[in-house]
Amino acid sequence: MDDDTATEILEATYRALCQHGYASLTLKDIAAESDRSKASIHYYYDSKENLFAEFLDFLYEQFTAELSSVGGNTPREELEALFDTVLTDERATPGQKFRTAMLEVKAQAPYNDGFQARLAEFDTVLFERIREIIASGVETGEFDDAVDPAVAAEFLVTAITGAHTRHVVTDRSTARFNETITRYAETHLLADAPSEATH
Amino acid sequence: MDDDTATEILEATYRALCQHGYASLTLKDIAAESDRSKASIHYYYDSKENLFAEFLDFLYEQFTAELSSVGGNTPREELEALFDTVLTDERATPGQKFRTAMLEVKAQAPYNDGFQARLAEFDTVLFERIREIIASGVETGEFDDAVDPAVAAEFLVTAITGAHTRHVVTDRSTARFNETITRYAETHLLADAPSEATH
Repeated sequence: MDDDTATEILEATYRALCQHGYASLTLKDIAAESDRSKASIHYYYDSKENLFAEFLDFLYEQFTAELSSVGGNTPREELEALFDTVLTDERATPGQKFRTAMLEVKAQAPYNDGFQARLAEFDTVLFERIREIIASGVETGEFDDAVDPAVAAEFLVTAITGAHTRHVVTDRSTARFNETITRYAETHLLADAPSEATH
Repeated sequence: MDDDTATEILEATYRALCQHGYASLTLKDIAAESDRSKASIHYYYDSKENLFAEFLDFLYEQFTAELSSVGGNTPREELEALFDTVLTDERATPGQKFRTAMLEVKAQAPYNDGFQARLAEFDTVLFERIREIIASGVETGEFDDAVDPAVAAEFLVTAITGAHTRHVVTDRSTARFNETITRYAETHLLADAPSEATH
């Protein structure tokens, strides 16, 4: 299969996933979103699980590219840009539907080693990127040198993951979670924060 | 239906859910875990969705009872006891399986108003309990009076939710998340924390 065919099928998978969710998604639904027949998709991928493993790799590439392109003049700006990237307002279609479907996929992780390994990679790459930004902020003196970058990054990844889940469950905007998490970061990481802003 | 019958069916639902997950769960699976026939369960509940709405109410009652019974000599101890309650080590069966199934149910929320309303209640009652503990800690002077109880509670509910999701996705122990979240609370809420512990 050439790259264009693969990309076409994976983009059709994205659209079909947003429309049907993961549990009831079939190769037929994916074919309906592409110019391919169900038979040809089946020929390439064998099963929904195999196609989905590829799809997670495809998303992972996009995600790492997004995380790498996050930039700013200072570590603080970089961290804010990262929050804007991972906590965009997903009320807009298909964002929320995609996030909902991904929560279904996450619930499959304990039953599918391939999914679990891939989803753990998203978790790790996000952790590493945040740790790196915080460490460079500590180095430049923008962040308090008492901050342990690994501990702060671990906490922030947990909070970001929670924001994604609560957004699906409570239908609240991720923009609101972005605000809370940014506020945490600003008040607990910055060196010499004025005392009224330290909490 | 008398209360004993209802409780028996709901307890069978818990066991069947841990065994089969939500997506593939059938009334027949639930019947297999109880002394009832599929027909009698169907008679009482009509559909899996209806039974599940009742099941969420049943879990909610247990959850609020657990949250109310959380105690300690001081707000700080109370908060730690709450973390121990909501972030128990769920590697033990059936804890992790149950948490995984609940993640599937959360992913149903946008498609089922009854589920969404109920799941939002779990979110709200946890928020309120944490806000209340923090507010009383601020009042007694154990927590820093610059802490805004609602903001801190909002952040902690997000982190606890994220710990539950990451536990399923990465197969890491919730006990580890409990440690990170407790550390956050200790270092950012306590009044007069020694400066080496403020981050």
